[in-house]
Amino acid sequence: MGSFQNPKPENGFTGTIKPLDPEEFRRQGHLVIDFLADYYNNIETYPVRSQVEPGYLKKRVPESAPHDPEPIEDILRDVQKDIVPGITHWQSPSYFAYFPSSGSIAGFLGEMLSTGFNIVGFNWMSSPAATELESIVMDWLGKMLQLPSEFLFSGGGGGVLQGTTCEAILCTVVAARDQMLNKIGRDKINKLVVYGSDQTHSALQKAAQIAGINPNNFRAVKTTKVDAFGLKAEALRAAIESDIKSGLVPLFLCATIGTTSSTAVDLLPPLCDVAREYGVWVHVDAAYAGSACICPEYRHFLDGVENADSFSFNAHKWFLTTLDCCCMWVKNPSALVKALSTYPEYLRNKASESKQVVDYKDWQITLSRRFRSLKLWLVLRSYGVANLRKFLRSHMKMAKNFEGLIGMDKRFEVVVPRNFATVCFRISPVEIRGDRQIVSKDEVVNNLNAKLLESINESGKIYMTHAVVGDAYVMRFAVGASLTENRHVILAWKVVQEHANALLTAT
Amino acid sequence: MGSFQNPKPENGFTGTIKPLDPEEFRRQGHLVIDFLADYYNNIETYPVRSQVEPGYLKKRVPESAPHDPEPIEDILRDVQKDIVPGITHWQSPSYFAYFPSSGSIAGFLGEMLSTGFNIVGFNWMSSPAATELESIVMDWLGKMLQLPSEFLFSGGGGGVLQGTTCEAILCTVVAARDQMLNKIGRDKINKLVVYGSDQTHSALQKAAQIAGINPNNFRAVKTTKVDAFGLKAEALRAAIESDIKSGLVPLFLCATIGTTSSTAVDLLPPLCDVAREYGVWVHVDAAYAGSACICPEYRHFLDGVENADSFSFNAHKWFLTTLDCCCMWVKNPSALVKALSTYPEYLRNKASESKQVVDYKDWQITLSRRFRSLKLWLVLRSYGVANLRKFLRSHMKMAKNFEGLIGMDKRFEVVVPRNFATVCFRISPVEIRGDRQIVSKDEVVNNLNAKLLESINESGKIYMTHAVVGDAYVMRFAVGASLTENRHVILAWKVVQEHANALLTAT
Repeated sequence: MGSFQNPKPENGFTGTIKPLDPEEFRRQGHLVIDFLADYYNNIETYPVRSQVEPGYLKKRVPESAPHDPEPIEDILRDVQKDIVPGITHWQSPSYFAYFPSSGSIAGFLGEMLSTGFNIVGFNWMSSPAATELESIVMDWLGKMLQLPSEFLFSGGGGGVLQGTTCEAILCTVVAARDQMLNKIGRDKINKLVVYGSDQTHSALQKAAQIAGINPNNFRAVKTTKVDAFGLKAEALRAAIESDIKSGLVPLFLCATIGTTSSTAVDLLPPLCDVAREYGVWVHVDAAYAGSACICPEYRHFLDGVENADSFSFNAHKWFLTTLDCCCMWVKNPSALVKALSTYPEYLRNKASESKQVVDYKDWQITLSRRFRSLKLWLVLRSYGVANLRKFLRSHMKMAKNFEGLIGMDKRFEVVVPRNFATVCFRISPVEIRGDRQIVSKDEVVNNLNAKLLESINESGKIYMTHAVVGDAYVMRFAVGASLTENRHVILAWKVVQEHANALLTAT
Repeated sequence: MGSFQNPKPENGFTGTIKPLDPEEFRRQGHLVIDFLADYYNNIETYPVRSQVEPGYLKKRVPESAPHDPEPIEDILRDVQKDIVPGITHWQSPSYFAYFPSSGSIAGFLGEMLSTGFNIVGFNWMSSPAATELESIVMDWLGKMLQLPSEFLFSGGGGGVLQGTTCEAILCTVVAARDQMLNKIGRDKINKLVVYGSDQTHSALQKAAQIAGINPNNFRAVKTTKVDAFGLKAEALRAAIESDIKSGLVPLFLCATIGTTSSTAVDLLPPLCDVAREYGVWVHVDAAYAGSACICPEYRHFLDGVENADSFSFNAHKWFLTTLDCCCMWVKNPSALVKALSTYPEYLRNKASESKQVVDYKDWQITLSRRFRSLKLWLVLRSYGVANLRKFLRSHMKMAKNFEGLIGMDKRFEVVVPRNFATVCFRISPVEIRGDRQIVSKDEVVNNLNAKLLESINESGKIYMTHAVVGDAYVMRFAVGASLTENRHVILAWKVVQEHANALLTAT
C-alpha cells in the first residue's frame, strides 16, 4: 500500500502529503502501465459500445469525496469494476463508429511526457521547448502534406496545435471577422455571412454562433448525390450573389475534405476561385481525411489548398496521436494575432518584446496550453513517414475489402463512392426475399436499416454509427482503430450478415 | 530495441506497424515512467527558468520528419538532451512564478488512464462513464466548496470540466449574450457591455472579443490600493449607469476571487446586488484562489456566490490536477445549452433523445472532449479532503513565512496584503544605503525591482514573475509547486537577498 503521509516533521510544516514523491511516482506509474497493457490485452472481451443504462454510476459511488486517502490499488480496482463497463471502447479493434480515435504507444508516451513536465506554454518564455518544438513539427507535417510554403513558418505562415477542429474554425472565423469589420465597421457584424454545405460539420455553425455571426446568416448550401455530396462552386456563387443583393457581406467559407457523414470532398480549386472573387476567407477542414493526404496517391484531394487561407486536420483522429491534437496552418498569422492577442503586464517579458519568438497564446482561444507537440513528435519519429503511409493504406485496403464483401451480398448496397477508409452502406431498397424481389419505400428502408444498426450495436460485437445522406439512412463503417486487422473486418461483416438474416426473416 | 514492424503477413495486409501492441506498450511505458521519476529526482539540478536563446531547437533537430522509425531509447535521449534544457521547470520546488501548475502522482495517473482509454466523450452515449463520472465529481467538489445547491445537479444546476478559464468565461459570455439578444433583438449586439476591473484577467477581454462584443464596450473599472485592488460596487454601478445613459445594454460581470496580479478579491455580495438590479450575468472567476476555499477558514471569500450565475476555478493551478482542468458550475445549464447546442444527424442517439442524460458537448466550445474527470477523481480519492486542505494550508504557511522574512529586511516591503499563498513585494522606495535613508521616485524604484527580478531569474536558482499594481512594479512569490518545502522558501529568500546585495551595492 502506498502511503501519502509524510512522517518527517520539517521545520514545523508537518503532516502534509508528498504528491510528487519520485519513488512513489515510479511505483504507482508502473502499476498503471500494467493496468493499461492488460486493458489492451483484454479489450476484445468487452462489448464495444457500453451497455450501461443512464445513471448507472451514481448507484456505485459515494455521494461525497472521501475524507481520507485511498490506496491506488483500490482505485484501480474500481476503475476496472465501475468505469470500464461504462466505456465505449474506441480502442477496440471492432470499433468502426464515428471516426477513429487512433491511439498509439508513441502518442501515449508523448502525452505522458507532456503531463509529466506539466508546463503551461502560453508564450515562448514560459517554456521555449514547447513553442519551438511545435513550430518545428508543424513545418515537418506541412512538408509531409506538401502544403504550399506560404503555410510554413519558413514561408511567412505557420502552424499551431489546437485542441479540436471547433477551435481551429472558431479562431479563423474570428480572424476573418475582425479583418472584415476593421474595413467595413463594427456595426456591420450582423451583415456577415458564413458558408458551408449541408454536409459541413456542425463545428462551423457552432463557431459562427459563438463568434456572434447572426444565426440567420449561416448558409448550408445544398449538395446532391449526383455530385457525390460535394459543394459546387456554382451553388456557392449563387448563394453569395443572393446575399450581396440582400445587402449582406460574404465572410467565410469552410470547405471540407472528407465530410463526417460520407467522407465527401469539396473540390477546392473552383471554390477558392469564387471565394477569392468575393474576398471570402477559405478554411479547409480535412479533420478526418487530412491524414491520408501524406500518401502521394491521396494528395490530389488537397489540390487547390494553395488558394485557401487556412487548413486543419485532426492528428487525433487517424494519425495515431491521442486526443486532443488538431493541426492548423494559416498563411497570415498576423490576422489571427490581431484578433486573439492579449498582452497584460503580468505576461510581459523580454523575448516577447523582441518579436523574435512566437507566442502561441495569440493563435488560439485560451491562454494556457499543454505541450501537445511532444506527442506528435513522438508519433512522427517512432513510426516514420514510410510506416505511417503504410498504416493508412492498410486501412484503405481493409475498407475496400469490406466493400467487396458487401458487393457479394445482393441485399446490401454501398450508397456513396468510398474515398478513404469509411464505407457507407445499407440494406438496399431492392432486397431479395426468398425468390421475390421487392422495392421498398424510403421510409421503410430507413427504418429497417436503423433497426439493423441498433441490433448490431446492442450485441456489443462491433460498433458502427449512422448518417443520413440525401434521404438515405446509411450505416457508416469507418476503419481506423489502431488494433483493427483484416480478420476484424471479416468478422464485422459476418456480424452484419447474421443480424440482417435475423431481421429480414422476422419482417 | 523495440521493433514496430509486424513480420507476420496477415491475409495480405502485410508490412504495417502495430501501434498498440500491448507488450510493446508495457515495455515502453515502463521506460517513460522511469524517465519521469528520474526527472523529478533530478529536478533541482536544472535552472528553473530555461536559459536557451530563441531558435535554439531548430539548430538541433532535422528539417524533416524521419522516413524510418527510430527507437524510443533514442527519442528519450533527445528529450533529455534537447527538450529538457528548453523547459521552464514548473514542477521545480523553486518555481514561484505566475501561478503554480501543481502536478501530482494522482493527477498524472488519471491523465494516463484517460489517454489510455482515449475515448471521445462528446455525448453520454460515446462513453457513459466519462459523462457520469464528471457529473459526480463536480457535485463532490461543489459540496467541498459549499457551493449553494442551485449549482449542483441535485439542485437543477450543474458542473462541467472546461480546459481553461478562458473557455469557461467564453461559454458563459455567449450564454448571457444570446439570452439577452433573444429578448432585445440580434441587431443590438453592438450595444452589449461587459464589465470587469482593471485587475480582471485578460481572459475576460479576450472572451468578449471572441464573442463579438464591441471592443469599445469592454469596461475595466478602475480599482485602487486603498480598496486592496478589489472592484467596488459603487464604481460598478457608476459604470453601468453611465452606459445605460449612453443607450448601451449592461450584459456581463466577471468578479474575481484572487486576481492574477496581486490575488485581490472582489467582494461578491454588493457586486451581485448591483448586477441583479440591472439584469447582468455574474461569473465568479476563482481560477487560482478557488482551491483554498475548500478550507473552512477561507470559504468566506466565496460568500455571495449564491447570487452569481456561474463560478469557475482551475484544478490545474493549485489543486494537484495536471493541466488542463477548469471546473465550472452554472445555475442554469439550459442557458449554456441553448447557446452552444448542435445536434446533427450523425450524433443522434436514443439516450440523447430520451433527455435523461447530459451531453456535455452542449456545455462547451468544442465537440470532442477528453475524459478529464478521471484525473480529478483520482486526486480526490488518492489524497482525500483532509489532506488536500492540509496541503493548501502548508502553502499559506510557507508564504506567511516568506512574508516574515521580508519583514526582517528593512530594504523590502510587502506591497499588498497577502490573501492566500502569493506574496507581492519589492525593494521599498525607502531604502537604507549604509547609514543614509533615501526615498526614490516611482520610476527609479520600478526599474530597480525589474533589474533585481531579472538578475534573480537569470541565475536559474528560483523563478518569480512580476506584476504592476497601482503604479508599483512588484515581484510575485507564488508558493504552490507540489515539491516545494519550507527549505526552498528559505533558500529563495537568501537568493533574493544576495541579488539585492549585489544590485544595491553596484548602484
